[in-house]
Amino acid sequence: MISQDTICALSTPSGSGAIGIVRVSGPDAISIVNTIFSKDLTKVESHKATYGIIKKKEEDLDEVVVIAYKEGKSYTGEDLVEINCHGSSFVINELLMLLIREGCRSAEPGEFTQRAFLNGKLDLSQAEAVGDLIASKSAKAHDVAMKQMRGGVSNEIADLREKLLNFASLMELELDFGEEDVEFADRTQFKSLLAEIQLKVQSLIQSFAYGNAVKNGVPVAIVGSPNVGKSTLLNRLLNEEKAIVSNIAGTTRDAIEDEMVIKGITFRFIDTAGLRETEDQIESIGIERSYKKANEAKIILFLIDERDVELNITDIIDNFKEKILGKDIQVVTVLNKSDTLTKKQAILLNEYPNILRISAKENQNIEQIKDKLLQLVESLKLDDNATVISNIRHYESLSKAQEALNRIEEGFEVNLSSDLIAMDIRQASHYLGEITGKISTDDILGNIFANFCIGK
Amino acid sequence: MISQDTICALSTPSGSGAIGIVRVSGPDAISIVNTIFSKDLTKVESHKATYGIIKKKEEDLDEVVVIAYKEGKSYTGEDLVEINCHGSSFVINELLMLLIREGCRSAEPGEFTQRAFLNGKLDLSQAEAVGDLIASKSAKAHDVAMKQMRGGVSNEIADLREKLLNFASLMELELDFGEEDVEFADRTQFKSLLAEIQLKVQSLIQSFAYGNAVKNGVPVAIVGSPNVGKSTLLNRLLNEEKAIVSNIAGTTRDAIEDEMVIKGITFRFIDTAGLRETEDQIESIGIERSYKKANEAKIILFLIDERDVELNITDIIDNFKEKILGKDIQVVTVLNKSDTLTKKQAILLNEYPNILRISAKENQNIEQIKDKLLQLVESLKLDDNATVISNIRHYESLSKAQEALNRIEEGFEVNLSSDLIAMDIRQASHYLGEITGKISTDDILGNIFANFCIGK
Repeated sequence: MISQDTICALSTPSGSGAIGIVRVSGPDAISIVNTIFSKDLTKVESHKATYGIIKKKEEDLDEVVVIAYKEGKSYTGEDLVEINCHGSSFVINELLMLLIREGCRSAEPGEFTQRAFLNGKLDLSQAEAVGDLIASKSAKAHDVAMKQMRGGVSNEIADLREKLLNFASLMELELDFGEEDVEFADRTQFKSLLAEIQLKVQSLIQSFAYGNAVKNGVPVAIVGSPNVGKSTLLNRLLNEEKAIVSNIAGTTRDAIEDEMVIKGITFRFIDTAGLRETEDQIESIGIERSYKKANEAKIILFLIDERDVELNITDIIDNFKEKILGKDIQVVTVLNKSDTLTKKQAILLNEYPNILRISAKENQNIEQIKDKLLQLVESLKLDDNATVISNIRHYESLSKAQEALNRIEEGFEVNLSSDLIAMDIRQASHYLGEITGKISTDDILGNIFANFCIGK
Repeated sequence: MISQDTICALSTPSGSGAIGIVRVSGPDAISIVNTIFSKDLTKVESHKATYGIIKKKEEDLDEVVVIAYKEGKSYTGEDLVEINCHGSSFVINELLMLLIREGCRSAEPGEFTQRAFLNGKLDLSQAEAVGDLIASKSAKAHDVAMKQMRGGVSNEIADLREKLLNFASLMELELDFGEEDVEFADRTQFKSLLAEIQLKVQSLIQSFAYGNAVKNGVPVAIVGSPNVGKSTLLNRLLNEEKAIVSNIAGTTRDAIEDEMVIKGITFRFIDTAGLRETEDQIESIGIERSYKKANEAKIILFLIDERDVELNITDIIDNFKEKILGKDIQVVTVLNKSDTLTKKQAILLNEYPNILRISAKENQNIEQIKDKLLQLVESLKLDDNATVISNIRHYESLSKAQEALNRIEEGFEVNLSSDLIAMDIRQASHYLGEITGKISTDDILGNIFANFCIGK
């Protein structure tokens, strides 16, 4: 699969810097760069950094270092030239314009990686991981992306798929000898294989909860009555980690307050209006919105204080949980202002050992909340060494594969004919193939690479 | 001059991108990178791009391409390793931390280029041009920086300096034979050489007006009575060039309105309050400020309209020019609303062929203003091929050298003794040497490189 045209783009972030890299990939990469470079790249060894001058007509545009990756031994699997120029936007724009004038086309977002995929340098799941790796902001997100890029997910899927396909072939072979009632495919062996595959697919599907959490950050809503100390807690949590707090660009600040990384996992804290019974119409809208936000979270810190202790805590918590619709949402009840409890209140509270007791104001036991948050995320993980998927596309394909696998299982139970079972096997392997890109359509590819940055 | 320690920094702009380059330079560059890289760089050819893995303890941090520049054949003149990693801030931070843990030091701004200078890879004027090149935003600014980086200024200065030093040596030789009244140094020849050098220094000094204008942009103030159409003109000028209009970050918007590039030269437009006789105290302050801003400009567009035509235009212009203190400021008188002139006004105006006639509202003759602006800037240039200096440090050193040269000339006129003249020659060559860094102090170096970006 050889591209017809040659593409170019800036591959380093835009802005001023010491160095900028402009990449050129395609059949004419070397000949095009040769028209503007002071040295003849055909005479320079592949992979060798060469100093020279980029010429714009008679003028010198820049002193650069050029590396030609020849004979497909490159990221894209095509002839690829990297021009390391000075990181001046003026120089870079002029250079790109020169390249385009000499026959290059501006690369689409992710087009270098797309070509790498089309040329078999990496599979689709690995290509997607490249984008995730660049976007990763925390240690765990990086770890998941890195393992996927190095082929962790791909190998697992490819292995399952191959086993399925082998079996399907055997079953189809039986069909060719239809009259003779032979059985090349050992049913007992296949059933145990099927169970094994189902289990594997199931565990990959389950790993998505963890993978998605570490990749996109875990939304945590802080919910509770007015003046229970929500904002104080939020500030306390964020202040503690001030050095690594960052705003999410482009998101509304009143929807997501801030995010922070705790031990390699990003948490996105969502602020909500105080909850209470009210007849004020405007306040009701605010409270409704709080429940809506709480329902979008993965974890809710339900904050109560000493006033609630004297009431029926169980009722309060149950009453709150009733209004939380998402069944996957974990609710952590936290008692604030624990430093001001009366003896009576303290005794009452002893009935509820699971309630975390903190004082946001006095900065007491905030660590416990963090530990709890981490523990909840880690509990999504099945096994430390298990492969984790973090991509919703993979999740969807695996879910469809799972349905097909279940149909196979049912088929065996009702002694469905081999040709129908073989169809389901093909179906399951089709969905698994979508993940690694063995099966892919232009639509899928277009969607995936459009989310990349230009130059990758 | 070999550095004792090994430095590292991100050399591409920060932010997410396809590729980030981390540079390591110094005596231990190769051994330090070796401790975290999956391949042995001592066994990899110099300048050869090598694919491998960066390891963080047992974990893989990133797949990278590494190039080792060995035996001083590098930008810095030291062992230098470039690690091309994925452009993820997480990966880059981890990588820098790994390098620091293994013995690197975070590079100071410009430290790579400073080492290049200290190791004789480029002289001081060339090193300064590297910073200018990266910062250049227009074609002419780029051109001036590029010529300086390629040694244009250095060669010229070095040449002058060598001639001076040769002559000084001969004169000093005479002193050794003081009693014998010999003349190794031909006075007539030297006087003509001196004249030549004076002329050259003079033309370099004069080139600074142009060099500085193209490097830093030309401030243009639009000044005139209220309602004469100043803002309309400003918008017209800026709208015309909207695509390349940019704001200057960090400057107050009400001081500098906007900048734009016209045919490769950046102009910075300064808005002012309308001028008129007033007894209102607050308005007076505004008008005083307008004159102050006008005095900070290089070019003033003095806008008048048909109301002024019926008065004495010469008086109006002279009256305005009196209040402009800077003698280098060019005042261009522009008549706006030229489409609404009565016949009588048109006839009156014919007396003033140098006044540009425009209609900002009707977008008439705006091109003429741009041509005039360009023409004024180009008129600062002495000769298309002449070397241009753009650095105020060079300007200052040249000015001091000029003073010393003038003293030499005077010395000959009054038959000053050879030893005193030789001192002035040494002095002149000292100042010339400051430009290329033949003569340099830690203070000068510190100042220069502190303005660089980190990683260069």
